[in-house]
Amino acid sequence: MAFVMIREAKEGDCGNILRLIRELAEYEKLSDQVKISEEALRADGFGETPFYHCLVAEILSAPGEPQGPCVVGYGLYYFSYSTWKGRNIYLEDIYVKPEYRGQGIGSKIIKKVAEVALDKGCSQLRLAVLDWNKRAMDLYKALGAQDLTEAEGWHCFRFEGEAMRELAGK
Amino acid sequence: MAFVMIREAKEGDCGNILRLIRELAEYEKLSDQVKISEEALRADGFGETPFYHCLVAEILSAPGEPQGPCVVGYGLYYFSYSTWKGRNIYLEDIYVKPEYRGQGIGSKIIKKVAEVALDKGCSQLRLAVLDWNKRAMDLYKALGAQDLTEAEGWHCFRFEGEAMRELAGK
Repeated sequence: MAFVMIREAKEGDCGNILRLIRELAEYEKLSDQVKISEEALRADGFGETPFYHCLVAEILSAPGEPQGPCVVGYGLYYFSYSTWKGRNIYLEDIYVKPEYRGQGIGSKIIKKVAEVALDKGCSQLRLAVLDWNKRAMDLYKALGAQDLTEAEGWHCFRFEGEAMRELAGK
Repeated sequence: MAFVMIREAKEGDCGNILRLIRELAEYEKLSDQVKISEEALRADGFGETPFYHCLVAEILSAPGEPQGPCVVGYGLYYFSYSTWKGRNIYLEDIYVKPEYRGQGIGSKIIKKVAEVALDKGCSQLRLAVLDWNKRAMDLYKALGAQDLTEAEGWHCFRFEGEAMRELAGK
């Protein structure tokens, strides 16, 4: 019998987290966009001013079972801000390996993120979902989330690369 | 002759910033959602760990003109994180009072945010725009931004209030 533990990521988890980031991007059919390195994840999450926080789901083996603990999912978030409501948490990624789905691990991760949010005085938990990922959309709606693109018409915009350098005049 | 200066907000600007936040929400037809106070803006932006950063556009009068400096616009941002590209900046709000539009003040604010982003090693500048706000959408596209909701199908989701407490089991 295996047990699942949701815990804060340590710097030594970054290699496992990067493998899961790549799996998620592949699932999202956008894996060509992944440019991050394990070094960047280490520096940005575990320096003096962390740019993100991360929870991992770890399977613990029962005594006598051969394999050691194994990271099978993660939830990566950061603190954001609403000029209407104040402090928020933004859940950038949540992922569980396919062979470990259907056991409530994803729900455990998102619940833990919501707990952190309330503990830190945040009034909202925000995230973005791809419109073809009906399974995820239905899950978040069932958990009580509102689709703000549908309800209010919000579109996500992004500047990057040359457009960003031009904007900055550099 | 008046001059416009884009500068970092100080704690004493929070009253002016709150007035502009309310004007922007009114323009967005969502002003019932504004619950923030000047005290929260002071505590969250100017404590030991700032939850946001803010630039203000200030009109400086020429010597001899009666009125003092006057804050007519703002850009409020925070650092966010992409597991694909690393550090980002998220521009939560950008606003210029209607009577000061058409002078390039909004462009000056967003350019300055892009400069900060590059200086801090960010590879993206993200923001959200309402779909009926064609003027803003066209401006950002003309400046080189990509509409990710249109291009890739990203929808913004939000948990808040009772849904968030239930999620956290509190």
